[in-house]
Amino acid sequence: KINPQRLAQSLAALGQVGTLEGGGVNRLALTEADRLGREWTLARMRELGMAVTIDAIGNVTAIYAGTEDLPPVMTGSHIDTVRTGGLYDGNYGVLAGLEVVATLRDAGVRPRRPIAVAFFTNEEGARFQPDMMGSLVYVGGLPLAQALATRAADGHTVEEELQRIGYRGPAAVGCPVVDSFVELHIEQGPVLHQQGLQIGVVEGVQGISWTEFTIEGVSNHAGTTPMALRHDAGVVAVRIAAFVHDLALRYGGRQLATVGSMQLSPNLVNVIAQRAVFTVDLRNTDEATLACAEAEVHAFAAQCAAAQGVACSQRRLARFEPVAFDPLVVSLIEQETRALGLSALRLPSGAGHDAQMLARVCPAGMIFVPSVNGLSHNVNEFTEPDDLAQGAQVLLQVLMRLAQR
Amino acid sequence: KINPQRLAQSLAALGQVGTLEGGGVNRLALTEADRLGREWTLARMRELGMAVTIDAIGNVTAIYAGTEDLPPVMTGSHIDTVRTGGLYDGNYGVLAGLEVVATLRDAGVRPRRPIAVAFFTNEEGARFQPDMMGSLVYVGGLPLAQALATRAADGHTVEEELQRIGYRGPAAVGCPVVDSFVELHIEQGPVLHQQGLQIGVVEGVQGISWTEFTIEGVSNHAGTTPMALRHDAGVVAVRIAAFVHDLALRYGGRQLATVGSMQLSPNLVNVIAQRAVFTVDLRNTDEATLACAEAEVHAFAAQCAAAQGVACSQRRLARFEPVAFDPLVVSLIEQETRALGLSALRLPSGAGHDAQMLARVCPAGMIFVPSVNGLSHNVNEFTEPDDLAQGAQVLLQVLMRLAQR
Ligand SMILES: NC(=O)NCCC(=O)O
Ligand SMILES: NC(=O)NCCC(=O)O
Repeated sequence: KINPQRLAQSLAALGQVGTLEGGGVNRLALTEADRLGREWTLARMRELGMAVTIDAIGNVTAIYAGTEDLPPVMTGSHIDTVRTGGLYDGNYGVLAGLEVVATLRDAGVRPRRPIAVAFFTNEEGARFQPDMMGSLVYVGGLPLAQALATRAADGHTVEEELQRIGYRGPAAVGCPVVDSFVELHIEQGPVLHQQGLQIGVVEGVQGISWTEFTIEGVSNHAGTTPMALRHDAGVVAVRIAAFVHDLALRYGGRQLATVGSMQLSPNLVNVIAQRAVFTVDLRNTDEATLACAEAEVHAFAAQCAAAQGVACSQRRLARFEPVAFDPLVVSLIEQETRALGLSALRLPSGAGHDAQMLARVCPAGMIFVPSVNGLSHNVNEFTEPDDLAQGAQVLLQVLMRLAQR
Repeated sequence: KINPQRLAQSLAALGQVGTLEGGGVNRLALTEADRLGREWTLARMRELGMAVTIDAIGNVTAIYAGTEDLPPVMTGSHIDTVRTGGLYDGNYGVLAGLEVVATLRDAGVRPRRPIAVAFFTNEEGARFQPDMMGSLVYVGGLPLAQALATRAADGHTVEEELQRIGYRGPAAVGCPVVDSFVELHIEQGPVLHQQGLQIGVVEGVQGISWTEFTIEGVSNHAGTTPMALRHDAGVVAVRIAAFVHDLALRYGGRQLATVGSMQLSPNLVNVIAQRAVFTVDLRNTDEATLACAEAEVHAFAAQCAAAQGVACSQRRLARFEPVAFDPLVVSLIEQETRALGLSALRLPSGAGHDAQMLARVCPAGMIFVPSVNGLSHNVNEFTEPDDLAQGAQVLLQVLMRLAQR
């Protein structure tokens, strides 16, 4: 049985690193706060006697040895956050993994296969795109060199920042080779909480499409330039953003669309914007529908830019097709949940997760616990302590089942 | 006859202060660059033997004495710029005024009334709102204390910044009392250039309405939050911005509408915006239509915010009714233009100007010269040297006519 207090204490302790006035945390990937969070987590791994490896993209893996020298059963997640994030997103999966190891250790239990607890670099994608960067590189889905060269809006590259915080590790990416992967995470959405259920058995992850649009117009005087003579980058940006939102309402169903980031230049009240840069986040569980949404936005953007006489360019920041998790891992999670007497629901994940990358190289699955009011990427993100404890217990059972095979 | 070379040299010299890589200037009000621009201009005033006064809001007035001790005939404009401004907006009016004085001085001419050349603080309104702040305080339209307490988006107040750059002057605002005011300015719009005309005889200034909207929603995860459960501040902002633009097209005629500034928070690709702050600039020569546009935007904003379940608040940044210039000054400008053999067009001003504030306390008028392609608030703002010289010559004639009365 895992120790709920110890789990809660470790969540609170890591939550102190990069804490924001008024609650929540800001531990954007590869910042000083991320470095401090990493140091704290590594110290905990070493305390548990685990062998720690840091790879070339800064992913950290800690191994609890098994009785046989086999590829490990891996769990884990990430410890980076968005700029105004909560205490649970990612952190919970990593610390629950360490709680499982602490429990096994206290009980003097060694499974047949080793158990690995990992945290992957830049899962959030808030500072560097794409998201899930560390796990994507781990599974060979993105060349290391390309990931290292990625530049943030603040001008720094992944490589510079890894060097600066001392996490450009010596290990080759993709080591160790993994037997199977199970990630425990808060749902981040409203489904489990609304339905009063305890555990989400995640069947897969929806498709994710991130695009950055840059509109280049001509700055001019807001008081002297007739509407018909304008090349207003701002108006094109807001029209496309409104179209993107309308598209999600028009498609209905599981189509989601968000314009979360926008910058105008020179960004002054009486100057027609010369440039607008904004992002579009489109998601759907159905690949064909997602591709159709992308094509519609693309076409509208081109038409809208042409009508205003401005240039419109696009840069793909991330694109992942929907992922289905391994049916055996999914049903193993469901069985163990029921065996513990907990209520379960099969559901897809709305958020992207490291598990969807690991699914490319081994059987993988995910366990969700409820998020109160479905809040996440918000400083008020919260999960009840009982739910946190139950999720960790399911994780322990599932990891043991996999490790004993 | 004014000296075109000397005028061009002084424009180029002041244009060196706060110069941007790749052209243009950034001399936002009360910044270090503004201080350097002020120092340069004061030195030039003193070189011309003028008596200089700095008032409590940082307006600077330099007097060229007349033969009688009467209220001066005043000219002038501003030397602050937007963040990516040109070399002529405002600067031209101040330096042409000094060129007129230099010409009279070289010729040993003293008019009956004194001639004053002034530059007013923060005309652009790019850093502190409202625009035309210095001249508005000068004419008693805004209490000094309120102007001094105005805070920029960068956190500093007008008072702090005046102190810092050493321009919180000893003179009371509103001194000297002015006989009449004539401002020479680039048109900043396309009318004169398109029609191949030399001088604009400005009949008045259109009404200006600036409002800042703040939308407060709930940040949440872009991948897990169903569209129907969102309180997305960003989508409300872009819908209102699109509505504002559509309104201008719908009204047609002289209605202008611009959303030049927008900030989302936390401004990340996969986070639904918790807050959006943006500005709306509405202009019309007709007060009733302008008020109607404001009411429509207000109503739409409230409805759109309610539909998305977010809060919407508004702050008025500036509001000026349309202004008609003094008919005698206007016809004097037209007469002197024709007397010089130059082509003239009566037109309204699209931009706000210090002259519209001075019009509250004395007969006032404005002279425009063409802006190539109507560009302004743009680093490529340009006026042909011949047009600059002709405008300054018209200014000399008009000032002498007023000063000899
Ligand atoms: N779990 C999570 O918040 N991942 C960030 C990537 C995404 O936007 O889905
Ligand atoms: N002349 C000028 O650009 N004034 C700035 C105020 C305005 O936006 O009209």
